[in-house]
Amino acid sequence: MADRQQFRDLAPPEEAREVIDSLDLRPDDETVPLREARGRVLAERIDAGLDVPGFDRASVDGYAVQAANTFGADEADPARLELAGEVHAGAEPDDEVGDGECVEVSTGAVLPPGADAVVMVERTERVSRSDTERASGEPAADHGEAADGRAASDTSRERNDPRGGEEVLVRTSLAPGDRVMFAGADVAAGERALGPGTVLTPREIGLLSALGVEAVPVRGRPTVGIISTGDELVRPGESLKSTAGEIYDVNTYTTATAVEEAGGEARLYPHAGDDYDAMETVLREAAAECDLVLSSGSTSASAVDVIYRVVEETGELLLHGVAVKPGKPMLVGRLGVSGPRSGGPEDERRESSGGSAYVGLPGYPVSALTIFRTFVAPAVREAAGLPEPRTATVTGAMAVRERYSEGRLRYMPVGLVDPGPDESLPGEDTADGTGVGAGAGATVDTLVYPVDKGSGATTSLVEADGVVAVPPDVEQLDAGERVEVRLFSPDVRPPRLFGAGEDDPALSRLLDRVDRPRYLGVGSRQGLRRLRDGVTDVAVVTGEADADPDDAVEVGGWRREWGLVVPAGNPDGIEGVADLVDDELRFVNRTTDSGLRTTLGNAVAALADERDADRHDLVEAIDGFEFAVRAHESPARNVLAGEADAGLGLRSTAEAHGTGFVPCGTERVRAFAAEERREKPGVRRLERAIEEADDVLESLPGYERSEPLE
Amino acid sequence: MADRQQFRDLAPPEEAREVIDSLDLRPDDETVPLREARGRVLAERIDAGLDVPGFDRASVDGYAVQAANTFGADEADPARLELAGEVHAGAEPDDEVGDGECVEVSTGAVLPPGADAVVMVERTERVSRSDTERASGEPAADHGEAADGRAASDTSRERNDPRGGEEVLVRTSLAPGDRVMFAGADVAAGERALGPGTVLTPREIGLLSALGVEAVPVRGRPTVGIISTGDELVRPGESLKSTAGEIYDVNTYTTATAVEEAGGEARLYPHAGDDYDAMETVLREAAAECDLVLSSGSTSASAVDVIYRVVEETGELLLHGVAVKPGKPMLVGRLGVSGPRSGGPEDERRESSGGSAYVGLPGYPVSALTIFRTFVAPAVREAAGLPEPRTATVTGAMAVRERYSEGRLRYMPVGLVDPGPDESLPGEDTADGTGVGAGAGATVDTLVYPVDKGSGATTSLVEADGVVAVPPDVEQLDAGERVEVRLFSPDVRPPRLFGAGEDDPALSRLLDRVDRPRYLGVGSRQGLRRLRDGVTDVAVVTGEADADPDDAVEVGGWRREWGLVVPAGNPDGIEGVADLVDDELRFVNRTTDSGLRTTLGNAVAALADERDADRHDLVEAIDGFEFAVRAHESPARNVLAGEADAGLGLRSTAEAHGTGFVPCGTERVRAFAAEERREKPGVRRLERAIEEADDVLESLPGYERSEPLE
Repeated sequence: MADRQQFRDLAPPEEAREVIDSLDLRPDDETVPLREARGRVLAERIDAGLDVPGFDRASVDGYAVQAANTFGADEADPARLELAGEVHAGAEPDDEVGDGECVEVSTGAVLPPGADAVVMVERTERVSRSDTERASGEPAADHGEAADGRAASDTSRERNDPRGGEEVLVRTSLAPGDRVMFAGADVAAGERALGPGTVLTPREIGLLSALGVEAVPVRGRPTVGIISTGDELVRPGESLKSTAGEIYDVNTYTTATAVEEAGGEARLYPHAGDDYDAMETVLREAAAECDLVLSSGSTSASAVDVIYRVVEETGELLLHGVAVKPGKPMLVGRLGVSGPRSGGPEDERRESSGGSAYVGLPGYPVSALTIFRTFVAPAVREAAGLPEPRTATVTGAMAVRERYSEGRLRYMPVGLVDPGPDESLPGEDTADGTGVGAGAGATVDTLVYPVDKGSGATTSLVEADGVVAVPPDVEQLDAGERVEVRLFSPDVRPPRLFGAGEDDPALSRLLDRVDRPRYLGVGSRQGLRRLRDGVTDVAVVTGEADADPDDAVEVGGWRREWGLVVPAGNPDGIEGVADLVDDELRFVNRTTDSGLRTTLGNAVAALADERDADRHDLVEAIDGFEFAVRAHESPARNVLAGEADAGLGLRSTAEAHGTGFVPCGTERVRAFAAEERREKPGVRRLERAIEEADDVLESLPGYERSEPLE
Repeated sequence: MADRQQFRDLAPPEEAREVIDSLDLRPDDETVPLREARGRVLAERIDAGLDVPGFDRASVDGYAVQAANTFGADEADPARLELAGEVHAGAEPDDEVGDGECVEVSTGAVLPPGADAVVMVERTERVSRSDTERASGEPAADHGEAADGRAASDTSRERNDPRGGEEVLVRTSLAPGDRVMFAGADVAAGERALGPGTVLTPREIGLLSALGVEAVPVRGRPTVGIISTGDELVRPGESLKSTAGEIYDVNTYTTATAVEEAGGEARLYPHAGDDYDAMETVLREAAAECDLVLSSGSTSASAVDVIYRVVEETGELLLHGVAVKPGKPMLVGRLGVSGPRSGGPEDERRESSGGSAYVGLPGYPVSALTIFRTFVAPAVREAAGLPEPRTATVTGAMAVRERYSEGRLRYMPVGLVDPGPDESLPGEDTADGTGVGAGAGATVDTLVYPVDKGSGATTSLVEADGVVAVPPDVEQLDAGERVEVRLFSPDVRPPRLFGAGEDDPALSRLLDRVDRPRYLGVGSRQGLRRLRDGVTDVAVVTGEADADPDDAVEVGGWRREWGLVVPAGNPDGIEGVADLVDDELRFVNRTTDSGLRTTLGNAVAALADERDADRHDLVEAIDGFEFAVRAHESPARNVLAGEADAGLGLRSTAEAHGTGFVPCGTERVRAFAAEERREKPGVRRLERAIEEADDVLESLPGYERSEPLE
């Protein structure tokens, strides 16, 4: 077992990248309807197949004229033209514009034959011929007549008889081409419209619409098969047998969505188990159907063995083990579909008969996503013709010093936090108004902090925003040092409020009212430590003995009732902490970082005082004082499962789970903000949420607003 | 007509925004399978429903032990434990770990009952009991015995009988909990996992997978109906009757894809025409089915009237006309489904019986997209629960001075160009290596230049990258002034090469080999002007008389054969330019900006010299010398359509269209780069494309490589 997992000749990361780049993942181009082409990448140049507009087009509502007929006309001395007809957008002109004539046109109408310009309606006036005759044959020359003409025009409109001997006064002089968009002026047939590699956004869809393009040649999306291995893995939604060590399969859906985000099409294969024949069948099927096949390292060593053998026997193993952390056990190869590898001409036959690239990702979720993001996503995007998203990386400054000296390239999972009162990150739209004079304000560096819960932790997935590549020769990153963070997704956005501390059901609900919070329920003690380190904005703490933290201000709080969660009906007749000491009861505590545990410790100390006993002896007498579980509900769940007779907990938890509850007291829960982040909008928002928390506190049994602070 | 289109009480833009914000577009929440939840927005908080892991879990391959049995053990003095069984990931433990015993475990296995720690396999050694017995009952104490033990262990493995009296030497001292991940250590049941409003990226999908969540409550996507109006509009793919003034419908697909980009679902309604009854039917249907209905102003005034009336009669008009350019004729209202508006209780009934918001966009494509981007997309995103994309805006510096003094808020369409040799824009990933010390280089400001082809031009859609909001009181933007650009799409990426000049088929093909080029075929003269203005990187010019531009360097070129495109078989027996002067031939020229026209002008001047005639007289004698069309193929198309007897063009165009061709000479096509952009990668790439253009030049009749420059 030890031998199998040692990778003596680890490839350097650059070689891994080169090997992956050498894999051919590019699928055939395809044709899609224009309506479905958004986000796709043009496979070929598209030249305009027609003129836009396809005809000489009136640009305004008005009258089509022969420009020469208007030479010298102005407001005072208009040209007088006979109205010969009308043409609207989408209609074929019936009438020609002869010398001395005009035709009414609407915007977008075909310019009638004979016309070479359009006068906008605002510069004209319609008069009936009778008015004209009454006003003599001369062009109207003074203002008074023009006013008369206007009145007459209204009358003629009421008659609704545009051709009934009407004339139009044109009060401006036109040049040929005025207010006409000539055929092909926008796009001329034969012009280069869009080139290969163009990502189709709404504007390109618009141009292709104008050209009447119905179907678009686009780059194919690489098909990426995802194979789930490991007997212990269960798909979400199926039932889980925890006693048999089953866990939900995290990597399959994570990888599938990451593939889709990178522009590929994910295809999920049924759970293969760790059996050679079943695995081989699935791998061959996937190799035949996909451009790339991914699996993530099963924790079961035998599955790794099986994959290794199938790759070796049907295809070619190109790389086994890379000198990066995490990602060491990465496998890269090619999978065949038609049988063992044999070299020579048969090898070519195998090539032509299908097969796919293969990459084996590490098993831990953060490691798998890191390796996917760093090595595989670029290859999928390249195959799809897509550029790296602009939001794929962010630069920031290290919030704390980080030492590292393993002599191996490391992808360090990190979180981001914006320290300033101006919470906008580069490129984030804040201005609702206008766009002039933008970017004048000082930019506050985003802070970058390492997230290291152990790569096995699923929660690292959402506590980290991305990874920083730390070169092998870097032993230490100083606080303030600038680093580039590759985000786990271009859609990842750092939190607007970052807090850590006590796990509390009221807080859970209040955080729903804050935009993009990140809260780590690490307990009061850890919460205060992180606040001191300058990483978090806020710590939420309980445990009455704690002094107020330095350089922090309280932004609000509440009280909660604590006690012992016991089975329904309290079968052991427990009355308080003293019974834990005196009776044979299996107890379940919270972890040492929990403020609630501090509160319990204080109660035990008070009991010791009362009995004039040693606190330590009382603790020793409690069976399970050291049996500590993490979250506020966990002891209740232990009691419900019959694993304990009493657990440390809250009235609200007990009532929510229908267990019994022995009240022991109330404790304050208080939120502290780092002084320098006091004005950060996320902190302000939390403060307001606490101020307005009445509904939440009323909905939770045993909760109440804190008495005002003295 | 004039009255209808005047908007005397234009609303200020802020009011338009408020009115749109007041529309309720938010659809019901919905539940989607986890597998399809990428990009969706959580509608509710999700607390963990189970512990992760669900059991105490071995973190390494090794042996489960009672830690107390290993106290004091080290390399030299290992603890000796009896192997009592094995348990793999996904299996229920069969065996308990008693005092002095151990059980083999693989990573991820359930910790067997009785054990409280795991020792990693690397710190152990397996020995058979016979070895143990031979080595006396004492713990092995020296290195020699350990070596013996290893050999024996190999033998026992070959027997493949793990329980056959084997023992394990543990060479390290363990504390309870070592290498064990306790149930709930990653996520504890009851903990807050994800809050409402969380955008689901792969990492969140991963966490939800770990929690076994199968179906996710997410915000609904607002349904946005798009109604196409205007008798002249034809959907792409259908046949177009240009003589009747038909044009392809640009706004429907553009708006639909922009809706989808903003997180809505677009629903297209059939072309409604401008008839009141048909329009009313479609509007009512859309109002019943959608959260928002959009139409874009038809150029036909009667359609605007119809929409106006339907909104007034079935719903409520909230706003008519906004003081912005473009976008003045914007309509905002509510559409009912069940009849005319009547106030009072019936009004409420109408509300409850459905109906939707309505926004009427301007008709010109760039205006429609601008107003959508500025006013409507934020409302759609808000309704979908999505944040503004980080890439939605970019800041840059004005490349040129821009005057404006209309006293109205203006959304100025602009293009972006990066002037520097480092072509990366903020946030664009360039580093392929590591992420430490990022962002040390100087940032070159992106240049922003106004695009103003008239808002009716479809090509403005792809020549502009976004809009800058210029406040009413700003009369001038200086060159260098910083502005914020709202991109037309978060996926819009500025060009990597920006050129303008002659329209040339070889160039069209060579640009396919350059990453993200933008090339405007505005003719040689305009191309040179833009290069002088410091906006473009490159000008491509023809017309032998042109002097080399100042502050520019030639990066390559070729020659092309030009002449007269005539009908197939040359029915008029045209032999050259002289025939255009001497015969009654209808000629079609290129526009004055075209370098090819300059070449023709030079040929006419040479003919005038030869004849000792006035050049101007010869030009006058050519029928159609002033009939100028824009693109290189356009004259050929005129000849093909029988509208001209000869057109100015290229041999390659004539052969591509199967027309006749009368050669008149060859001309040089040369690409010039702005001196300060000489090293820009896009320019270098074009230079290389020209150097390697042999295949392109050979594929085009009449093309050849330029003779080397002296």
